[in-house]
Amino acid sequence: MSDQRQDLLPRDRLDGASVRRLAREGRLVGQTSGLAPGYVQGNLVILPADVAADFLRFCQRNPKPCPVIGISEPGSPHIPSLGADLDLRTDVPLYRVWRDGVLAEEPTDLEALWRPDLVAFVLGCSFSFEEALIADGLEVRNVSCGVNVPMFRTSIPCAPAGPFAGPLVVTMRPFKAADAVRAVQITSRFPAVHGAPVHLGRPDLIGIRDLARPDYGDPVPVADDEIPVFWACGVTPQAVMEAARLAFAITHAPGAMLVTDVRNSRLAAL
Amino acid sequence: MSDQRQDLLPRDRLDGASVRRLAREGRLVGQTSGLAPGYVQGNLVILPADVAADFLRFCQRNPKPCPVIGISEPGSPHIPSLGADLDLRTDVPLYRVWRDGVLAEEPTDLEALWRPDLVAFVLGCSFSFEEALIADGLEVRNVSCGVNVPMFRTSIPCAPAGPFAGPLVVTMRPFKAADAVRAVQITSRFPAVHGAPVHLGRPDLIGIRDLARPDYGDPVPVADDEIPVFWACGVTPQAVMEAARLAFAITHAPGAMLVTDVRNSRLAAL
Repeated sequence: MSDQRQDLLPRDRLDGASVRRLAREGRLVGQTSGLAPGYVQGNLVILPADVAADFLRFCQRNPKPCPVIGISEPGSPHIPSLGADLDLRTDVPLYRVWRDGVLAEEPTDLEALWRPDLVAFVLGCSFSFEEALIADGLEVRNVSCGVNVPMFRTSIPCAPAGPFAGPLVVTMRPFKAADAVRAVQITSRFPAVHGAPVHLGRPDLIGIRDLARPDYGDPVPVADDEIPVFWACGVTPQAVMEAARLAFAITHAPGAMLVTDVRNSRLAAL
Repeated sequence: MSDQRQDLLPRDRLDGASVRRLAREGRLVGQTSGLAPGYVQGNLVILPADVAADFLRFCQRNPKPCPVIGISEPGSPHIPSLGADLDLRTDVPLYRVWRDGVLAEEPTDLEALWRPDLVAFVLGCSFSFEEALIADGLEVRNVSCGVNVPMFRTSIPCAPAGPFAGPLVVTMRPFKAADAVRAVQITSRFPAVHGAPVHLGRPDLIGIRDLARPDYGDPVPVADDEIPVFWACGVTPQAVMEAARLAFAITHAPGAMLVTDVRNSRLAAL
């Protein structure tokens, strides 16, 4: 990597390391959507070692909503496989600190909070597969509408582990039938970022009453000739974690992701 | 291959060459469904050279309904890539001869009809992908009901070529949503036997009025929580050919396919 003044480059010309450096230097404190296109962005969950094993088991049992793409050594703020200089204490633009299951603060770094018993999990995020869908010429409704993807709690239970239990949360993107088939093909190639859809068609079959009223995110229009397609969502582990009322946990703030050096294409299974 | 009395073996123990030999010897004159499991069965179309080029162009433009897996040299009744000893004049249990677009006769061999200007096309058939779906644990409704798959003319036009033009014909198999996603994944691996579905969900969007009244084949029950999934069908080229009112053409009789030495698994793209 060159050492030029990359913060002056257009946002879409940044690479993963440059975005992390901007966050580290306090010059980026918001969303990372659209930054460093082509690079994997991840959800961050940091837990004390005593519950980390339960959480890892939860992820292993629910790989579609919780695709683990990196885990730190206990106490280490580094995950070299995701970025040589990556520092989990500083490289996310905005963090959330949870105490007894309640949001306690939103710091821009974890220097004062880091502890030798912390274990960090990085989970794949749908930004990667949305990029693949768009690159194939599909319209991703939440992107074309410029809103957050609509998310819904379903009637599908996750496989529990330790204190972690709760319903699967899904995202919804509408497509015409032929594009829905194509979307299945494309996202099947990306198991590390939620993979193939978990459902398509009738929302009521998975406990969703009204597509116009998502539990998280924003509603998007669904045309009469479109099929709603549902993918497992990274909000699932966050919802499950909140429900577990852990004494202490740290996550990224919504939309302010950990940007890695891994290219999206490297997550493709085929 | 051994030279044992293979006609005495159970039907599901025959290989492709054994089925062809039974047909050749006049001891098999009916359907080939369920015979030689694991081996590719093909639709047969034999045309005079003067229209064969148009037909090949039609297939090239419509690869989903018309996946060509073999073409003979003009005048040759052999396609060695599909079977070393394969003889197109004798190895299909029952043929249909068409004159001026009308069914003229149903011979059990073509010895008296073969001409030096004939070109044979073998097109993939959905038996191969149905086998892959069942091997994966999915229920294929027409198989579990023991009936012919329901087929429908759609409002989707094929790309025309020469005298060949007409609507896409599709097969329909109902699945629960999660199985529909899996069926897309599995059949995507088999582009040589119709590949991924062309449509799923609302039949009216592709011009189908009533799933209970197929244009060909038999109706199958569709449960309330199931989605109809539609694949391009090998009946398409037959319907198009009939509509073209060719002076002379030969096909296999419905269900009495050409059984090859190619294993279904060898058609898998991945």
